[in-house]
Amino acid sequence: MRATVMRDRALVVADVPVPTPGPGEVLVQTLACGICGSDLHALKHADRFAASYRRPDGTPIMDLSRDIVMGHEFCAEIVDHGPATTRRLRAGTRVCSMPVLLRPAGRQTIGYSNEHPGGYGEYMRLSEELLLEVPNGLSTAHAALTEPMAVGLHAVNKARLQAGESAYVVGCGPVGLAIIAALRLHGVRPVVAADYSPRRRELAVIMGADVVLDPAREEDPERWRTATVIFECVGVPGVIAHIMEAAPRGARIVVVGVCMEPDTIHPLRGISKELALQFVLGYEADEFSTTLTHIAEGKTPVAPLVTGTVPLTGVAQAFEELASPERHAKILVTPGERG
Amino acid sequence: MRATVMRDRALVVADVPVPTPGPGEVLVQTLACGICGSDLHALKHADRFAASYRRPDGTPIMDLSRDIVMGHEFCAEIVDHGPATTRRLRAGTRVCSMPVLLRPAGRQTIGYSNEHPGGYGEYMRLSEELLLEVPNGLSTAHAALTEPMAVGLHAVNKARLQAGESAYVVGCGPVGLAIIAALRLHGVRPVVAADYSPRRRELAVIMGADVVLDPAREEDPERWRTATVIFECVGVPGVIAHIMEAAPRGARIVVVGVCMEPDTIHPLRGISKELALQFVLGYEADEFSTTLTHIAEGKTPVAPLVTGTVPLTGVAQAFEELASPERHAKILVTPGERG
Repeated sequence: MRATVMRDRALVVADVPVPTPGPGEVLVQTLACGICGSDLHALKHADRFAASYRRPDGTPIMDLSRDIVMGHEFCAEIVDHGPATTRRLRAGTRVCSMPVLLRPAGRQTIGYSNEHPGGYGEYMRLSEELLLEVPNGLSTAHAALTEPMAVGLHAVNKARLQAGESAYVVGCGPVGLAIIAALRLHGVRPVVAADYSPRRRELAVIMGADVVLDPAREEDPERWRTATVIFECVGVPGVIAHIMEAAPRGARIVVVGVCMEPDTIHPLRGISKELALQFVLGYEADEFSTTLTHIAEGKTPVAPLVTGTVPLTGVAQAFEELASPERHAKILVTPGERG
Repeated sequence: MRATVMRDRALVVADVPVPTPGPGEVLVQTLACGICGSDLHALKHADRFAASYRRPDGTPIMDLSRDIVMGHEFCAEIVDHGPATTRRLRAGTRVCSMPVLLRPAGRQTIGYSNEHPGGYGEYMRLSEELLLEVPNGLSTAHAALTEPMAVGLHAVNKARLQAGESAYVVGCGPVGLAIIAALRLHGVRPVVAADYSPRRRELAVIMGADVVLDPAREEDPERWRTATVIFECVGVPGVIAHIMEAAPRGARIVVVGVCMEPDTIHPLRGISKELALQFVLGYEADEFSTTLTHIAEGKTPVAPLVTGTVPLTGVAQAFEELASPERHAKILVTPGERG
């Protein structure tokens, strides 16, 4: 099959084997797959990324000397059923799934793996048990946003917001925007959001932010004083320390941005204000399925996030364009289209 | 009055003015006052300490060019009542109090202040409203341990332990020991505690630890895997990162040790395991009074902690001896005794 492959720390279009579905698995054709900031990280900091993600036994998940087909935010269509499947959904059904395979040895990652190609390839294998049928009428592009939007729902759930609490979202990339949507759905008011990019601040308003701030121009102290929960959605060194400095007494800081590098904090700031830092990752299965329902019911806006679509031949260029926040939020890869 | 004074970044015995009780305040004679690790910090890192502790308006609490009488873990005896007092407790009553004054302008610190001398002096002024009578029969020395033991109760309360959770206490200085006692009182089993010092490990067992470990000899991975709540009671750079590395998925890390320096963490460790860091400080008024009751009722052991008593002339030497964990846990200063 054709796929955009991470090979020698670069992205190239290549022919790779079609994956074979094992027991309880199905073969699917990828219809659309979003490009995630983590994929940009994985390419740019390939060695550090590969060193960080390991199986419980310590062996690395990604061997950089072999091909890796990334892509974990997908909508796909069932092509064939492997052995020991119930066939509850028939071939031709559009599905979403968490990007993991349920194997007897444990969960295995799809998209950051040498064994299990992700959505930057024409075909994937998925666990039948995890398949969620795309509700009739929901577009493939919007269904593909289930995964990143589930990240936002999970982060907001982990924040355990109480009535009357207000939220401050630092960074309005796709993760920050997903959190804004989840906060709005949760009924939190006001939702304050900050980003250096005018385009991202516009998107933040569209997704439901009540107030947007440009950190370069204003550090509105009153906004900080009233924020009881602050979401860190940037993931670069120094941001956690900056938030700890600005946060009011007793604030909870939910760290969603993935900082790959060591970072410096000042514990005394945390102690003197009794701050809490909650690091979060991913989502639970119920949060993933709830998110697909929310999108299908129009409760979670996703249309404004899709700013581009590329075939496999356009992925490398799309990775470069996503480094600038002004042009794009989410670019979808459509492996079935010829570039 | 005589007091051990922090002057020119050293401790000297000097004559200083007896404080005058303001409206709602009483004059007390200090009977015993514990030496706290924070006092050691404040002397050793005086400039950084003074720079860190500021009033809400940003002005420093401690002016190092003027005398400071430290000491905030005290038991005292009422000598005289100031204006606008109810005199509900009469002169001669032994009392404990949180080390703060309730002033119209807000709370003011006792012991880290140029204005309000602490327990390393013969006399203090206290807010009548905060006075807690020492229950009849409880020794002055044990009553003086209310403040540090309340720190342990507060940290355990902030950890919000659920049934079936187990705890790992890193560092068995006075703060770690107070936490062990509070965990035991809370019914947590097992309580695992680690310290390099054999003497402190002995004290940890006496205070209620089920298992003690020497980090130099063993990093029992099984103990780490089962710890759902980990208490950081060391307060030096690197300890938080070490705990984040060792902690199991979903663990809560309660940071009680006061690290005065910048510290490096690896956010990816926190994210990949969804760790939570809760920084804590001090205690609430109800936790302080509950702790005095617990000590008086014998529910919180404190006798093993008192390893020495010194007059005002012995404070400087006691500060030096407390730097070594082998000889001492808590040294009490008795300003009324002539040294």
